Amino acid sequence: MDNLPSPDEWVRRIAKLQERLALADLSGCLITQNVGIYYYTGSMQAGYVFIPASGEPTYYVRRSVVRALAESRIRAVELVAFRTFGEQLQRDYPAVFAGKERSANIGADLDVMPAQLFLKLGEVIPGARFTDASSILRQMRSVKSSYEVERISRAAEAVAAALEEGLAELRPGLTELELMAIIENGLRRRGHIGLMRMRGYNQEIMTGIVSAGEAAAEPSYFDGPAGGRGLSPASPKSVSLRPIGRDEPILLDLGCCIDGYVIDQTRTAVIGKLEPALEAAYRVSEDIIKAAEGLLRPGATPEQAYFRALDMAKEVGLAEHFMGSGKDQVKFLGHGIGLEIDEWPVLAKGFRDPLEPGMTLAVEPKFTFPGLGVVGIENTYLITEDGCQALTLSPEKLYVL
Amino acid sequence: MDNLPSPDEWVRRIAKLQERLALADLSGCLITQNVGIYYYTGSMQAGYVFIPASGEPTYYVRRSVVRALAESRIRAVELVAFRTFGEQLQRDYPAVFAGKERSANIGADLDVMPAQLFLKLGEVIPGARFTDASSILRQMRSVKSSYEVERISRAAEAVAAALEEGLAELRPGLTELELMAIIENGLRRRGHIGLMRMRGYNQEIMTGIVSAGEAAAEPSYFDGPAGGRGLSPASPKSVSLRPIGRDEPILLDLGCCIDGYVIDQTRTAVIGKLEPALEAAYRVSEDIIKAAEGLLRPGATPEQAYFRALDMAKEVGLAEHFMGSGKDQVKFLGHGIGLEIDEWPVLAKGFRDPLEPGMTLAVEPKFTFPGLGVVGIENTYLITEDGCQALTLSPEKLYVL
Repeated sequence: MDNLPSPDEWVRRIAKLQERLALADLSGCLITQNVGIYYYTGSMQAGYVFIPASGEPTYYVRRSVVRALAESRIRAVELVAFRTFGEQLQRDYPAVFAGKERSANIGADLDVMPAQLFLKLGEVIPGARFTDASSILRQMRSVKSSYEVERISRAAEAVAAALEEGLAELRPGLTELELMAIIENGLRRRGHIGLMRMRGYNQEIMTGIVSAGEAAAEPSYFDGPAGGRGLSPASPKSVSLRPIGRDEPILLDLGCCIDGYVIDQTRTAVIGKLEPALEAAYRVSEDIIKAAEGLLRPGATPEQAYFRALDMAKEVGLAEHFMGSGKDQVKFLGHGIGLEIDEWPVLAKGFRDPLEPGMTLAVEPKFTFPGLGVVGIENTYLITEDGCQALTLSPEKLYVL
Repeated sequence: MDNLPSPDEWVRRIAKLQERLALADLSGCLITQNVGIYYYTGSMQAGYVFIPASGEPTYYVRRSVVRALAESRIRAVELVAFRTFGEQLQRDYPAVFAGKERSANIGADLDVMPAQLFLKLGEVIPGARFTDASSILRQMRSVKSSYEVERISRAAEAVAAALEEGLAELRPGLTELELMAIIENGLRRRGHIGLMRMRGYNQEIMTGIVSAGEAAAEPSYFDGPAGGRGLSPASPKSVSLRPIGRDEPILLDLGCCIDGYVIDQTRTAVIGKLEPALEAAYRVSEDIIKAAEGLLRPGATPEQAYFRALDMAKEVGLAEHFMGSGKDQVKFLGHGIGLEIDEWPVLAKGFRDPLEPGMTLAVEPKFTFPGLGVVGIENTYLITEDGCQALTLSPEKLYVL
């Protein structure tokens, strides 16, 4: 891999978390999830990372120890045995774990750690009282380094190229699944790891959504403005076996994961011509994303962009179609993106911490018309010193084929 | 979808779980994971399923309510609000939740439910004391209906066909990733949903592993006998960019998920000729799987097949190469398979409940030679009334190209 991140990258990540742990009165943080382990070590082997509020962190590796030792940017040791993990921590961090039962206030990634593991860790580490530190961990990852931004940009190149390959083969009668298979092959050959990691429980996304006409507008469990019909009730999301027809909107919400980093991009296409109401709604999504670009700058708040989008949708009478329809409307305009596709901040009500340079956000104004389809656009942006810059590369237009 | 399961299928699943809940002195069971929800409702929308030890179960749906109402085979209602979920349960199940605080002993899928959700459910359902019911839930799913077996067989057909397509294109210099992209395209066009669901925390598998020579033998976090090098430390599993060469073992451990059900199959290939020690080890893996076939019958225990395989590997002096190498050897010969790839029973020490007709198991004897590669074979079997039957369809041989 070219352009390996400098060792400083990990030093900065750890220092930033330690500063935040101290502010939250936490003596340390235990990270159990593969993505979190990778972020703080540069390795994704099975085990646990303990980061004390001050001092050197340790990667306790279950397997493969050999691989973790070769990859880790922080101290890595073998986890002696799960049942003695508490004793191992106490030996390594006597100042943290020397007190009486449950006296060490330890943050942990409780939003992803299974309850069974949470209960077992409580048994084997009697000195610790585990607190949910998932908000802190998500905040820490919201600002990306130049190394991380470059990885996201690589993923953006792959998506743009694979989309072109898919569109070149698109003709009436091709099924959603067939079109997606072409695009996914292009993504995979360019290094897509095969899925886009997502933090939310029970959420799955491999390469996004290709969905046409009324299938795209079907209600969905998926925590996004459109989910797609899916292949069956056992996979109720993204592509179906529906043939793509003429004169209907084709939603191409695509992403991939390269070197661990994810991109997210949506374009709308049509073979023939969209009916005027749908074409008009598509134009509004372009207007909204342009307005959002003006609000994506350091100092502005994430919720401002969301409120502005809501206002614009309302002004043109499309509020009921914006970001889904009926009970399945989602209450956000976009989301942070990086190692996971559902990172922070979210462009939603309540996200009032100002945007900062280095944040990366997918912005996805979409309109859902039940029985007809979904139109919209989505770019991923980097917040710069004085505004924002699109990382997604495909031309911004309605693709008329 | 043809051959829809009969409504009886869900009646039987619920009745079987209720019988087991009563035995375990549980008043009911709360299921939160998407796969578990699908198993008990036929729908995979966001929400929770409550199954009382006796009486009618309910699917509390967050979204999409419309979709869940259309698909669910059990009573489905809208989840009014998460914060009032306890009150909704109390209204629906007064006999279960009418007692004092924490008096209802409720099982739940704590092996997959995030700790944060576990803690929040404890707050909003003060009447419940949650117990880990994951062993019960995994036992319940181990015996498959004919509908389920047919779904697994469909997935087996897709894997056999996609493997042929991949082998037809295999030539020296093709990278592991390029070969996998061809195979995955074949799987996807045949209806693969894009990933194989796996219950284990932090485990990921999309379509298996294609890995050649020494790359296949690299140590791995993955809970299997071989993981593969992977594309980077951020995706340390399965394919790499390594070109496939002559005279080296090519591990083709493939699966897919169709209609929610998974298959798992491994074949070993070589362009040219394997060196004698590796070819001999491959023959031992064939001998072990034949011996396992003799032990896969109702009444035999899962651990018997594992112990027999260990003995056979030891007899020929290959114990140190069996199911991984060094510290990364795994302690099983195979695993249950169905909606997830890591189902029960496991062919491992301690699994002493006798095999039953309808169980489906992947059996995967493999030998790892660090620096050289991995050889082995894997079939998925159905336990029948008097033995077993392979569901995997590819010819059982060393593929010499």
